[in-house]
Amino acid sequence: MFYRGGQPFELLKSEEPVAPPGTGLTLGVDLGGTKIQAAVVDRDGRVVATHRTETDVDGGPSKAVADIVLCVNACVPDLSGIGAVGVGVAGQIDAATGIVRSAPNLGWHDFPLADQLEQVLGVPVVVENDVRAITWGVWRHGAGRGIDNLIVLFVGTGVGGGIVSGGQLLTGDRGVAGELGHATLIADGRLCSCGRRGCIEAYTGGLAIAARAREAIDANPDAGRGMLDAAGKGDVTAAVVSQAAADGDRLAAALMKETGEYLGSAVVGLVHALNPRRIVLGGGVVDGNPFLVDAVASAVQADAIPIFADRLDVTGSELGSQAGVIGSASLARRRLEEGSREGG
Amino acid sequence: MFYRGGQPFELLKSEEPVAPPGTGLTLGVDLGGTKIQAAVVDRDGRVVATHRTETDVDGGPSKAVADIVLCVNACVPDLSGIGAVGVGVAGQIDAATGIVRSAPNLGWHDFPLADQLEQVLGVPVVVENDVRAITWGVWRHGAGRGIDNLIVLFVGTGVGGGIVSGGQLLTGDRGVAGELGHATLIADGRLCSCGRRGCIEAYTGGLAIAARAREAIDANPDAGRGMLDAAGKGDVTAAVVSQAAADGDRLAAALMKETGEYLGSAVVGLVHALNPRRIVLGGGVVDGNPFLVDAVASAVQADAIPIFADRLDVTGSELGSQAGVIGSASLARRRLEEGSREGG
Repeated sequence: MFYRGGQPFELLKSEEPVAPPGTGLTLGVDLGGTKIQAAVVDRDGRVVATHRTETDVDGGPSKAVADIVLCVNACVPDLSGIGAVGVGVAGQIDAATGIVRSAPNLGWHDFPLADQLEQVLGVPVVVENDVRAITWGVWRHGAGRGIDNLIVLFVGTGVGGGIVSGGQLLTGDRGVAGELGHATLIADGRLCSCGRRGCIEAYTGGLAIAARAREAIDANPDAGRGMLDAAGKGDVTAAVVSQAAADGDRLAAALMKETGEYLGSAVVGLVHALNPRRIVLGGGVVDGNPFLVDAVASAVQADAIPIFADRLDVTGSELGSQAGVIGSASLARRRLEEGSREGG
Repeated sequence: MFYRGGQPFELLKSEEPVAPPGTGLTLGVDLGGTKIQAAVVDRDGRVVATHRTETDVDGGPSKAVADIVLCVNACVPDLSGIGAVGVGVAGQIDAATGIVRSAPNLGWHDFPLADQLEQVLGVPVVVENDVRAITWGVWRHGAGRGIDNLIVLFVGTGVGGGIVSGGQLLTGDRGVAGELGHATLIADGRLCSCGRRGCIEAYTGGLAIAARAREAIDANPDAGRGMLDAAGKGDVTAAVVSQAAADGDRLAAALMKETGEYLGSAVVGLVHALNPRRIVLGGGVVDGNPFLVDAVASAVQADAIPIFADRLDVTGSELGSQAGVIGSASLARRRLEEGSREGG
């Protein structure tokens, strides 16, 4: 159903233009610390063309803008049929102005990404936090369709989230609501990337899993031998831990089981705060360890107050690794729809 | 400005009826584990008459209904000028039906309080969680006036909350959103009244403060002598700890300082999840220890991600001990307003 990875050119050689005017296509960009992906997405949330490249973090914002434009052009050489472009960025985004306030993985501060891209691309550009964009995509096209009270939690290198409550995507006072990775899990606990201690991300994100694994290996080198061997000359990353756990390594399995318990506690707390109908989990850590969805579902049923748990369900996102670009493209569509409503 | 405590009868002896038709008065009831308070409240949130009695928990729901009716009649013998009655109850409430699903302090389960009271009082009755009602009151008449993104956290015997986001009071899927006392503070930590471990309430609520104090006294009886003496033949309650701290007792002061740190961590996590413009703190523990407001404000400025902290403020409720009845009465007013809108 989706075109995955960097082979979009077949599509571009077809007789029909990829994006004829009026077809309702939008373009989504997922800008992360390791890769930049662009995709043309139709009004049903299907990816019809996609292209990706590695992120050149050292190149700074101007290199990133150039690489985004390259990816966009690789998907669709003529933007005349694309109504708008959405960009999801891991970090704090001022969505009203499209300014990236802070993106630690990229090392950016206060960069006017939407303005810069609009000047080059010549179409409206919206910029949003990556997981807030994903939340919109999950709500429109994924496992959150039709759900008025929804929490989306994506666990990758870091942890991000989004909240739909009463049929509205919450933005908060500055447009940054839903930073669930930095809700409290263990007050004054492990140091987090945000500088505070005890955040959900500091226990369950990919970087945290790797750090917990290193500590466990240091504490018990014999038990850690399997993960060290699997890592070879590289670091023990969350991916190494996941794979080792899947291969039956006992210490790795214990680490991932503990990750499920942390994630379960985190979600139960969010459930009590927000009383959602559905929890959607995604991101690399969850996609690579689908048992985590069941672990969280079990924690909710065991520990949440009954009226909160009775008809709550916990599920994967259905959007897989395309969640970022589908989310960004669906945010671009929202901008178009709001624009046309405002225009009459 | 407010009539406090059980001396409302002077008002009732005035020449004018308390509640002439069309004056826009509603009646609020605060039903807790220790007291029942009723109050007539005007459209500006001012208490014009109030009466309270002790809760007879052993008497069960029927005795509570009778005592509520007594308090109501003590405030206003003739309900013809009262448009609606609102009741706030500590517990999980199905607000759509007015059924008390679970009220641990009262020992109630699945009691149709709204129906029972409507039969006796003959006016529309709305029932809501006590702190969700307070949140509405704070938003309409207290420190949350005009704020579209607001978190209200009330710390009494237990801890309750309410969330306004994007100009809407969040209800969640079952009408129970905002149960912030049972959001996670320290995963797998202290046992909470809800049966789970590690909730905000398990560290910061009045019962938790008393339990923490007993443990600290057991661990260091010499340092605990002051609190034991202050308690006399009674228990070391949160009120005893608060008073001892105010009187300079070092262990009590350390306990209350620690309570401020717990509350600060809790609020920073909620701030990251919801990005409010304002945090309003209230309840007996906060009203008795106003330094807690500053402690939380300091924690937010020190530990929250800057874009979340930049223009966030933290303040008391402005409604004092009348918050419960003002909140319930203002919820009753909302019902009337919605009814009149629906009616045409």
